[in-house]
Amino acid sequence: MNKLLTLFSVAAILTACNQKKEAPITLKKGLTTEEKTDSTHVKHFFNTALTEGKSYEWLRDLTQNIGGRLSGSPEAAKAVVWGEKVMKEIGLDSVWLQPVMVPHWVRGEKEVAYYTVNGIKKEVPVCALGFSIATPTSGITAEVIEVKSIKEAESLGDKANGKIVFFNGAFDETLINTFQAYGGCVSQRFGGAATVGKFGAKGVIVRSMTNGINDYPHTGSMGYGEIPKEQYIPAAAISSRAAENLSADLKKNPNLKFYFKQSCETLPDAPSHNVIGEIKGSENPDKIIVVGGHLDSWDLGEGAHDDGAGVVQALEVAYLLKNNNIKPKNTIRIVFFMNEENGTRGAKEYAKKAKENNENHIGGLESDSGGHTPRGFAIDANEKNTDLVKSWNKLLAPYGLHDLVEGYSGADIKPLKEEHITLVGYKPDSQRYFDYHHTSTDTFDKVNKRELELGSASMTSLIYLMDKYLYSQEELKL
Amino acid sequence: MNKLLTLFSVAAILTACNQKKEAPITLKKGLTTEEKTDSTHVKHFFNTALTEGKSYEWLRDLTQNIGGRLSGSPEAAKAVVWGEKVMKEIGLDSVWLQPVMVPHWVRGEKEVAYYTVNGIKKEVPVCALGFSIATPTSGITAEVIEVKSIKEAESLGDKANGKIVFFNGAFDETLINTFQAYGGCVSQRFGGAATVGKFGAKGVIVRSMTNGINDYPHTGSMGYGEIPKEQYIPAAAISSRAAENLSADLKKNPNLKFYFKQSCETLPDAPSHNVIGEIKGSENPDKIIVVGGHLDSWDLGEGAHDDGAGVVQALEVAYLLKNNNIKPKNTIRIVFFMNEENGTRGAKEYAKKAKENNENHIGGLESDSGGHTPRGFAIDANEKNTDLVKSWNKLLAPYGLHDLVEGYSGADIKPLKEEHITLVGYKPDSQRYFDYHHTSTDTFDKVNKRELELGSASMTSLIYLMDKYLYSQEELKL
Repeated sequence: MNKLLTLFSVAAILTACNQKKEAPITLKKGLTTEEKTDSTHVKHFFNTALTEGKSYEWLRDLTQNIGGRLSGSPEAAKAVVWGEKVMKEIGLDSVWLQPVMVPHWVRGEKEVAYYTVNGIKKEVPVCALGFSIATPTSGITAEVIEVKSIKEAESLGDKANGKIVFFNGAFDETLINTFQAYGGCVSQRFGGAATVGKFGAKGVIVRSMTNGINDYPHTGSMGYGEIPKEQYIPAAAISSRAAENLSADLKKNPNLKFYFKQSCETLPDAPSHNVIGEIKGSENPDKIIVVGGHLDSWDLGEGAHDDGAGVVQALEVAYLLKNNNIKPKNTIRIVFFMNEENGTRGAKEYAKKAKENNENHIGGLESDSGGHTPRGFAIDANEKNTDLVKSWNKLLAPYGLHDLVEGYSGADIKPLKEEHITLVGYKPDSQRYFDYHHTSTDTFDKVNKRELELGSASMTSLIYLMDKYLYSQEELKL
Repeated sequence: MNKLLTLFSVAAILTACNQKKEAPITLKKGLTTEEKTDSTHVKHFFNTALTEGKSYEWLRDLTQNIGGRLSGSPEAAKAVVWGEKVMKEIGLDSVWLQPVMVPHWVRGEKEVAYYTVNGIKKEVPVCALGFSIATPTSGITAEVIEVKSIKEAESLGDKANGKIVFFNGAFDETLINTFQAYGGCVSQRFGGAATVGKFGAKGVIVRSMTNGINDYPHTGSMGYGEIPKEQYIPAAAISSRAAENLSADLKKNPNLKFYFKQSCETLPDAPSHNVIGEIKGSENPDKIIVVGGHLDSWDLGEGAHDDGAGVVQALEVAYLLKNNNIKPKNTIRIVFFMNEENGTRGAKEYAKKAKENNENHIGGLESDSGGHTPRGFAIDANEKNTDLVKSWNKLLAPYGLHDLVEGYSGADIKPLKEEHITLVGYKPDSQRYFDYHHTSTDTFDKVNKRELELGSASMTSLIYLMDKYLYSQEELKL
């Protein structure tokens, strides 16, 4: 759009330019004096994030100088050192590392997959799923049975014996929130191998967990559950376009043979750390509100949206509070959790130690849904604090934060859950998230600077309000 | 995010998978029976757009097979043929071309700009502004005066004589809606040359109209207003990073000389067309609601977000209505406007002919703010119809359409404005828009399929509701 007319006098031109300005965003009317104070602070958080924010440069450093950082890898170890450094640089009251043993799965050599129809060899973009075993070194070749769900796979019985089972359930594209579509499919990736391993299948290939059709295989965790070790079979993801093509080819050539080879391996657990830093509370130093993202990522990309964005936004919460001279009543603790992707060991260790040490957590906020433009927050809390968070709508709506809804907070803070604790998940727009999720395209260039910074400011605003207003356990009589 | 735990039984795994599904989006409670009917239709529009939508492939065709299509260019002529073809393909009741003469400015050879400081030659990414005159064939070399606004330039007087005036006013990054930041700066691009041409300046260079720092020069219209022809001076845009660097270098080397060369030219007006098609109204065929975007674009990119997106979304409105068997009461007219970017001649011709032919327009909807994720609509209407559109919030909010606010509709429908006519602008998220606007990076790959389709469905929902509920001129007693 241009919106400018030509051939006018300069005065008319400039008047026209002014007319073209869109109406400024205004707060809803009827704010109390206290709300006006709050709205001023919120505005300052956004102004600071958008003009002096550090999250984008932190993310550049983490993704470009370290890159993908799967638990147990040298890159994950470097990320821990990086995390401690940046926390210290912004002057938190204390910074420490919390030791945790993490799973150590390695991908091995680049995977290979193909099949041949009518004499034409079709290469298939493929990647091993996390925790999968390797194929034999010569790979696996077998006929393919296509299913669309775990339920359909359960009914295969002996028909799966000796076959490669192809899980081809696609995202329901009509779901506006793409995380719902993911939720409807991901059991294939996670439980597919265990489901058909017991029937004697030779392997599974799973359509990538992504919206639409693209050419990248998307990795992610799988598990063998309680089936005996001798029933473990290799599991891999193939790109959604390859899945579409294979499905079409199978209709014409039901006996085609599929080949894939992978050399991944689960090594002994490795030592790692959660990285923790805090601003001590001025009134209730023993009451803690956690703000976090996860430091580990999958290995295929740079872990930019998942979850470099969440890590730098969590850190920016502390930076923006300090920069705006906010002295929180309660302790604000920033946590870079280790191993969210394959084990959530960091989250479990954090919750375990919090219990052992009788720490008093009153709230938590997690960012692990990407670095896109803000939409709102998902609230997991008792009724009174849920209503409280929803009541902040008029303060947050001017920044695009309309969705204040009950929902899932996040995998890293969920283990802290108790009735009196208010857990919140930051929810940016989800439309592009599964284009990049767990694949080689999750790189720094996919993150927009302003969108990332708006997320940091959104989270800071929520933490400011939680710190000031949350009903305590005593007030709730819980 | 992974959100899946390992080492569980398969049953527990699958239960866990289900628990991880996010809460489905639900309509607000308390809908009337009629609203339930409406909400069902709205849902169907979204389902169809997201599963059988054609907008993305239309956009691929327009941008990849034709590309940038500046008014008067062979590509713009091809786009008219393309537009007529796609309108006919979806079976509109009638399709026609409306002739219009358009400005014909051509860029000429690739522009060149540089300056030298401390013996180091610094190349500057540069592009001529639309309607600018050329430099002499040998280019222009002069000292530089930096200003931050038209107002500051107005005060230069004789100091500008013989100089290149450098307009370096940057976007106000604290404005959440980036169109507001654009509105605060664009007078420099449009009126800069006319402002200092009268003081005898040799040329102007303008910081690109973009958020943040990037390496692309962003073109766009300028005008000479009413200054005499002999005061016309060449005007060019430089990238925002080059502007930052030049500003820093000027502080240390106030007498540095800047060089630029461009060979652009305004040719005689050229014949072109608006492309128009309609679905005849079943009850009031003479009452017209227009839905449009602009077919022309700047030449540097592919005109994907600006405004290929708007064109294919407007067409998809008709497609989705037909596909869902909606027979509108009023005539729904799709218009691909020509020459929005440099002249809005198509819009003016359309409004002129509508008046001459006594056409009864009751509403209009324009998409010319990019193809990003939906946020809402800007309403330019009388009080009663404004309140009506705002009342659709509960139907539209589940699709992310929260911003139903009074505002500017769009440059192509604005000339239709009368008191009884309801004009609406579709407003997607604005954060990324000025990364691509009027520059070489406005290409097909920057448009996300789902975001584009969500926009088509948003617009279709609004047109369905406008067609059904708008207060007529008689009801309004206007």
